[in-house]
Amino acid sequence: MFEAVELSRAVAGRTSPNPAVGALIFDAGGYVCGAGTTAPPGGPHAEAAALAQAGARARGGTAVVTLEPCDHTGRTGPCSRALIEAGVARVVFAIADPTAQASGGAETLRRAGVEVVGGVSAADVEAGPLRPWLHRQRTGRAEVTLKIATTIDGRVAAPDGTSRWITGEAARAEVHARRARVDAIVVGTGTVLADDPALTARNPDGSLRGHQPLRVVVGDRPMPAGSRILDSAARTLVIRDHDPAGVIERLSADCCDVQIEGGPRLAGAFLGAGLVDRIEHYLAPAVLGDGRAAVVGSGARSIADLSRFRLRMPVRALGDDVLLTYDRVTGR
Amino acid sequence: MFEAVELSRAVAGRTSPNPAVGALIFDAGGYVCGAGTTAPPGGPHAEAAALAQAGARARGGTAVVTLEPCDHTGRTGPCSRALIEAGVARVVFAIADPTAQASGGAETLRRAGVEVVGGVSAADVEAGPLRPWLHRQRTGRAEVTLKIATTIDGRVAAPDGTSRWITGEAARAEVHARRARVDAIVVGTGTVLADDPALTARNPDGSLRGHQPLRVVVGDRPMPAGSRILDSAARTLVIRDHDPAGVIERLSADCCDVQIEGGPRLAGAFLGAGLVDRIEHYLAPAVLGDGRAAVVGSGARSIADLSRFRLRMPVRALGDDVLLTYDRVTGR
Ligand SMILES: NC(=O)c1ccc[n+]([C@@H]2O[C@H](COP(=O)([O-])OP(=O)(O)OC[C@H]3O[C@@H](n4cnc5c(N)ncnc54)[C@H](OP(=O)(O)O)[C@@H]3O)[C@@H](O)[C@H]2O)c1
Ligand SMILES: NC(=O)c1ccc[n+]([C@@H]2O[C@H](COP(=O)([O-])OP(=O)(O)OC[C@H]3O[C@@H](n4cnc5c(N)ncnc54)[C@H](OP(=O)(O)O)[C@@H]3O)[C@@H](O)[C@H]2O)c1
Repeated sequence: MFEAVELSRAVAGRTSPNPAVGALIFDAGGYVCGAGTTAPPGGPHAEAAALAQAGARARGGTAVVTLEPCDHTGRTGPCSRALIEAGVARVVFAIADPTAQASGGAETLRRAGVEVVGGVSAADVEAGPLRPWLHRQRTGRAEVTLKIATTIDGRVAAPDGTSRWITGEAARAEVHARRARVDAIVVGTGTVLADDPALTARNPDGSLRGHQPLRVVVGDRPMPAGSRILDSAARTLVIRDHDPAGVIERLSADCCDVQIEGGPRLAGAFLGAGLVDRIEHYLAPAVLGDGRAAVVGSGARSIADLSRFRLRMPVRALGDDVLLTYDRVTGR
Repeated sequence: MFEAVELSRAVAGRTSPNPAVGALIFDAGGYVCGAGTTAPPGGPHAEAAALAQAGARARGGTAVVTLEPCDHTGRTGPCSRALIEAGVARVVFAIADPTAQASGGAETLRRAGVEVVGGVSAADVEAGPLRPWLHRQRTGRAEVTLKIATTIDGRVAAPDGTSRWITGEAARAEVHARRARVDAIVVGTGTVLADDPALTARNPDGSLRGHQPLRVVVGDRPMPAGSRILDSAARTLVIRDHDPAGVIERLSADCCDVQIEGGPRLAGAFLGAGLVDRIEHYLAPAVLGDGRAAVVGSGARSIADLSRFRLRMPVRALGDDVLLTYDRVTGR
């Protein structure tokens, strides 16, 4: 299952609104004979790709899948049937399919005499590449991650607006690696006008990564014609809506994993609306003592308005900086 | 040596301006026969206390001390001589005495035929209870620690001024344990007027700890007569000086370990003056998105004015919160 999760990690951010699933087929002798991941919408599911690779060796073997095989004919046929037809003897999966439409795969497999084991490494898979998709299935909207890069005193820019660089190279490389795995990156017009960011996922040498997320700008102010966010490196969507819920609803049609990258006012608006599910906090061991705070205008008045999160341990070192990841506990 | 360090930890904050030293005497058979720590100024040094406990059993034995035995007659006689007279055969110490006045103990011991080994566990001892005293010997001023308790976005109070409680019980208990080990706690008048803090070191049940640091208030504004900081639980010093260097110079006569506990403006002034050596950062996994920043008015204008620190790993969990400790890298 660990390897199936690693497989699926490679396609995170490329399969939405379908789940990023990984599948492995072991032959009757216990050797891997097929591996597959979900293709972009319209392409084959992970199981179908793995079975195609395994061919006749799947007969009498075992399929290991991160999500319960689907039981539903959409743009592709049901995976439960494909596994039965390939003669697989045993199916091991992590998470039961939560959708009314596609669930029932385990039941269909069992009725056909296939041994089925569910719930294997479920906690790991829930916290991994399937997380945003599961969130969207359960809540009806994309999972929202707020990414901030701050000093010890919570600043993201100096009083004169300069902000390069608060964090070091290792942290910035991690931001780019993470960008390549999300569906969309959202910023306010203020950030575009102040920093002219490209918002692409790049390699350390500056070249573009294979996958680029959708770039989203929220706000009314027009952007200068030469803005880097309008270049051809990736798609860009402008949303003229000041309601965070409206923005997320709009993006949830195609996206499971949405990352807010600032600035402070947009972050405050999403936080105040109770729409931040996770925070990825790159903390640089430095103090400014003046300048722009990471989040402003959330509408909080007293300490009772604190939005509580839970910090995941251990904390990860990235060069001289650290990455702290928080999951929401209470909404506001 | 580990045990000698642990011994000295118990008296940290009670020996200034003398160093918090720990000493153990082992008899010729290798059994512990004496243990001692530095007494408050005027009382015996750690070695003398340990030798008094060991009595005749010290003869032919070994002394383990965190600091090189002194060679100087002050209010007490030189420890080098006391060790020679007790017939100790071997002396092991961590750190050489950096003072012109008291150094030379190792040399005196060697000349008397005692085997001397220096530098044992030196790095651990430097980072431990001797650190503030060593800092004062090397720089001529007390070591300054800035203590802050912030949200993810670097806030220490909500817009309406409420700040209780951002961090949880475990973090607050650690703050009190730490207070009992420092020489002085410094706050600005703003914090006294806003929060009326007691600034004492208390046990979880609210009772006072055995040792109380000096309470220091900096600023011109008078404090209301009933202010808790003026009660009899500990001594309080009011310094009407807006120059951080002047404040530290004044405190350095008696103190090695000074802790700034806020508020934001006082923190900014000390940081801007390049006078913060360490930061103890209690970070609560919560966001306010508005309110008072942990540090303001440092005078920073651009990102070039960042004060860089180094984060000590691993990060320590305290209930739901974490304690991040930083050491200064560059001054401003
Ligand atoms: N270090 C970092 O990680 C980092 C990251 C990002 C930004 N920054 C810094 O942040 C600064 C920009 O700050 P900012 O706060 O002006 O930028 P912002 O949050 O990106 O943009 C604010 C704009 O977002 C639009 N918006 C849409 N919905 C909104 C809502 N519900 N509430 C409020 N605004 C909404 C508005 O645009 P319209 O007025 O056009 O309608 C508003 O003016 C720059 O100095 C930049 O360097 C730093
Ligand atoms: N969560 C926490 O850990 C925490 C801790 C402490 C405070 N706080 C919050 O901080 C707020 C108080 O903020 P504050 O900034 O007013 O308090 P502050 O920094 O404690 O006090 C500011 C005052 O310090 C004096 N001062 C002395 N030297 C100074 C210098 N070089 N520069 C500037 N001031 C100097 C001045 O007093 P005079 O004007 O009298 O001369 C100044 O008005 C409260 O809301 C409190 O709740 C939170």
